[in-house]
Amino acid sequence: MGDPDAAFTRISPLRDAEPDDMAFLADGRYAGELPGCRSRTLLVSEGLCSLEDGPSDRLAVADPHAALVALLPLLHPEPEVATGVHRTAVMDPAANVAESAFVGAGAVVEAETTVGEGTRIGANCVVGAGARIGAAVVLHPGVTIYPGTVLGDRVIVHSGTRIGVDGFGYVQSNGRHVKVPQAGGCVVEDDVEIGANCTIDRGSIGRTVIGAGSKLDNLVHVAHNVSIGPGSILVAQVGIAGSTRTGPGVSMGGQAGLIGHLEIGAGARIAAQAGVIGDVAPGATVSGYPARDHKRYLRAMALVMRLPELAKRLGRLERRLGRAGDGA
Amino acid sequence: MGDPDAAFTRISPLRDAEPDDMAFLADGRYAGELPGCRSRTLLVSEGLCSLEDGPSDRLAVADPHAALVALLPLLHPEPEVATGVHRTAVMDPAANVAESAFVGAGAVVEAETTVGEGTRIGANCVVGAGARIGAAVVLHPGVTIYPGTVLGDRVIVHSGTRIGVDGFGYVQSNGRHVKVPQAGGCVVEDDVEIGANCTIDRGSIGRTVIGAGSKLDNLVHVAHNVSIGPGSILVAQVGIAGSTRTGPGVSMGGQAGLIGHLEIGAGARIAAQAGVIGDVAPGATVSGYPARDHKRYLRAMALVMRLPELAKRLGRLERRLGRAGDGA
Amino acid sequence: MGDPDAAFTRISPLRDAEPDDMAFLADGRYAGELPGCRSRTLLVSEGLCSLEDGPSDRLAVADPHAALVALLPLLHPEPEVATGVHRTAVMDPAANVAESAFVGAGAVVEAETTVGEGTRIGANCVVGAGARIGAAVVLHPGVTIYPGTVLGDRVIVHSGTRIGVDGFGYVQSNGRHVKVPQAGGCVVEDDVEIGANCTIDRGSIGRTVIGAGSKLDNLVHVAHNVSIGPGSILVAQVGIAGSTRTGPGVSMGGQAGLIGHLEIGAGARIAAQAGVIGDVAPGATVSGYPARDHKRYLRAMALVMRLPELAKRLGRLERRLGRAGDGA
Repeated sequence: MGDPDAAFTRISPLRDAEPDDMAFLADGRYAGELPGCRSRTLLVSEGLCSLEDGPSDRLAVADPHAALVALLPLLHPEPEVATGVHRTAVMDPAANVAESAFVGAGAVVEAETTVGEGTRIGANCVVGAGARIGAAVVLHPGVTIYPGTVLGDRVIVHSGTRIGVDGFGYVQSNGRHVKVPQAGGCVVEDDVEIGANCTIDRGSIGRTVIGAGSKLDNLVHVAHNVSIGPGSILVAQVGIAGSTRTGPGVSMGGQAGLIGHLEIGAGARIAAQAGVIGDVAPGATVSGYPARDHKRYLRAMALVMRLPELAKRLGRLERRLGRAGDGA
Repeated sequence: MGDPDAAFTRISPLRDAEPDDMAFLADGRYAGELPGCRSRTLLVSEGLCSLEDGPSDRLAVADPHAALVALLPLLHPEPEVATGVHRTAVMDPAANVAESAFVGAGAVVEAETTVGEGTRIGANCVVGAGARIGAAVVLHPGVTIYPGTVLGDRVIVHSGTRIGVDGFGYVQSNGRHVKVPQAGGCVVEDDVEIGANCTIDRGSIGRTVIGAGSKLDNLVHVAHNVSIGPGSILVAQVGIAGSTRTGPGVSMGGQAGLIGHLEIGAGARIAAQAGVIGDVAPGATVSGYPARDHKRYLRAMALVMRLPELAKRLGRLERRLGRAGDGA
Repeated sequence: MGDPDAAFTRISPLRDAEPDDMAFLADGRYAGELPGCRSRTLLVSEGLCSLEDGPSDRLAVADPHAALVALLPLLHPEPEVATGVHRTAVMDPAANVAESAFVGAGAVVEAETTVGEGTRIGANCVVGAGARIGAAVVLHPGVTIYPGTVLGDRVIVHSGTRIGVDGFGYVQSNGRHVKVPQAGGCVVEDDVEIGANCTIDRGSIGRTVIGAGSKLDNLVHVAHNVSIGPGSILVAQVGIAGSTRTGPGVSMGGQAGLIGHLEIGAGARIAAQAGVIGDVAPGATVSGYPARDHKRYLRAMALVMRLPELAKRLGRLERRLGRAGDGA
């Protein structure tokens, strides 16, 4: 709609958009900000395109977020990236790093590691002995890859995340907690993205696996021997205890927690802050602690807030029935 | 009270105080430790000053914590701080660092950055390209400032915190999660303090903002496009999902979580572990999941614990009414 | 049972075991995987030893996890560890590091520190001025020890953990939050293990203490002046607010939170995600928010899910009693 040659240099939320920006509207709840919008162009979902106020030059699309995937790289091209090893990086002679890879300042790459083509190891990362890192991987600064950990291709790991950490396993002996050696592995499959300051444990025996294409937000904890199915979404601060296995396409809201040794079915949805202490069926949606069917839980919690009234009604009945009982 | 020349070299909790320490009593619940206190001097709130046992040389003040703000710097003067760039730091030639700033060992400062007067970049920090850091800022060791992030003056960031991280945004395409470029910014305003191992995301489009004078405890997560009003308090492990906006002076207890796209009013108080899934009015206090008015929630939860009794009373009524009904 | 000379090179979970591995079965819920197991040998608990399918060469033990403690170091001997200071480490001349200690690449050890015999400081760690670190300690890469912090002997700290961080303390003055200096200490006693990306604050005045032999999982937060009793277990993402004191042998499930100034008795058990806002008696088990006796809480929550039915039954009674009342 409007001027097909309308130009813009940036895409911005409605309320922040400068005149030369393209404003962005994908969600009706922000439509009230249209009248105050200062930009001349608008990227808008088809369903909201007919709203009257705001920018008149409009690009209406079925999915504005998908449009961002196409447009933003044009507006913000990736900076040229260096290749090679920074002079301050510390490379073990027995590290096997591809020519087209980059190793940043202060990074440490230990013995018997492999680093694939086009992979970027950020500043001050540590890649432990025997780790294998695929191609086109990005480790942002300050990541630790524990020895023996395996990362697939096109994995992105944000700053401060630790992968292949010793799991949390002890046995009691004479009243003391004795550490069980954590001798297993940790595999992060292709196309996984992991946020900042996450912790992914190695297996005790066996492996921890993050399935292909899964996306983990910041501060997520995955314990030893957990298996996350491919294509899953774990929002920030989720925690999963040992040996729990989740099917493909599972989603977990922020701060959700799962105890150990569970089976979570394919496509299950676990609401934010849910505390899951039992298996979850494929496709189910659960919330609360202990986690239950989401709709039933919300209905029950609504009644919890009415408990003072329900208790009063119960007392009233008792008093009346006391009389009725007397009369019987 | 007592000897106005009483000396002390340290201030300590009642139970730990050595004879030459000044013991500290600000909270009546610790008054029971007065008799066992070994120190000769006591810093005490006026309301507790008349308690009989314990040290007899007393400094009574209206607010003992405020007194700590005045006294502790006298007892523990800040060590002399170095200026200049450590020989092992890696400075891009196009970094613009003030003469009076300090850059620690192993720190990396990328191109087109500015670092203000008196600012201290701790060991092994990484300051990404184009970041702007104000004056008198302290970055403790191992902090990552992602490219383009802006920090105001007198900001303190504790060790391991990541600011300006890619937000968590994907669109579905052919059953895969495709990353939405995170092209926005992240602004931390003046006088903010951020604890250790926090994660603050950059905007997707637009900006994430931490308002002036706000204080964040450790392990706090702030997602993309969130705006935290000035003067707010976020206790440890709080998580805030994308695009939520909070007014000035909001406080959030430990482990509280907020879903995305909410409006939290000025001065709202969110209790520890609350799960907020709707807007919160200015000045309101909420708790629980889903978060409700705090007092109503606690009252309802007290009745929850009485549910077994209420259910029994209901069953008894039904049995009696069964008879009553028969008799009617 | 079977061939006493059966050989194996690795121990693996039942479902992953290769023919030359020893499979592992300690928990009856995995017994269903026995028929599909491809290995020839099995490490099994005595109670499960008589199960028919699966490997026929069996080592039956009372506690298979304890057997792992004995067997795994034989199969996976610790690699030879280097001693000395890496050429890229930055050592203050006034650091006092034992001959048999190791300081990794890019690590920074500040003035007036001591590092004991056999201790390993991982790559890119920072040990602040005046810190004292015992013997046989392991700091994995990227750990920060704030100035003045004290670690005992045989302490293990995983990557990215921050110990001795400023606590979260402010006083209000003219509507602003003014930082209370955090002048206290932080002591981690002997044989403690701390997971990755944890945050342990120093005392404001006085000390924070992690008692001997306690084990902390990943992403745990311990605030200023907290005291954790010896031999305690804190699972991932636990958070403890300031000045709370816990007795010996306490266990806390994942994501549990404790407000400040509490007393938690010896041997208390705090369930995953519990929100503790009052003292807990020795030996008690609590769950929920606000945390209550675990069994009572679960019973009450079961009734919560039946609230819609209870409310219906109440309404039915009211309607009947309305008639009954009319009839009386």
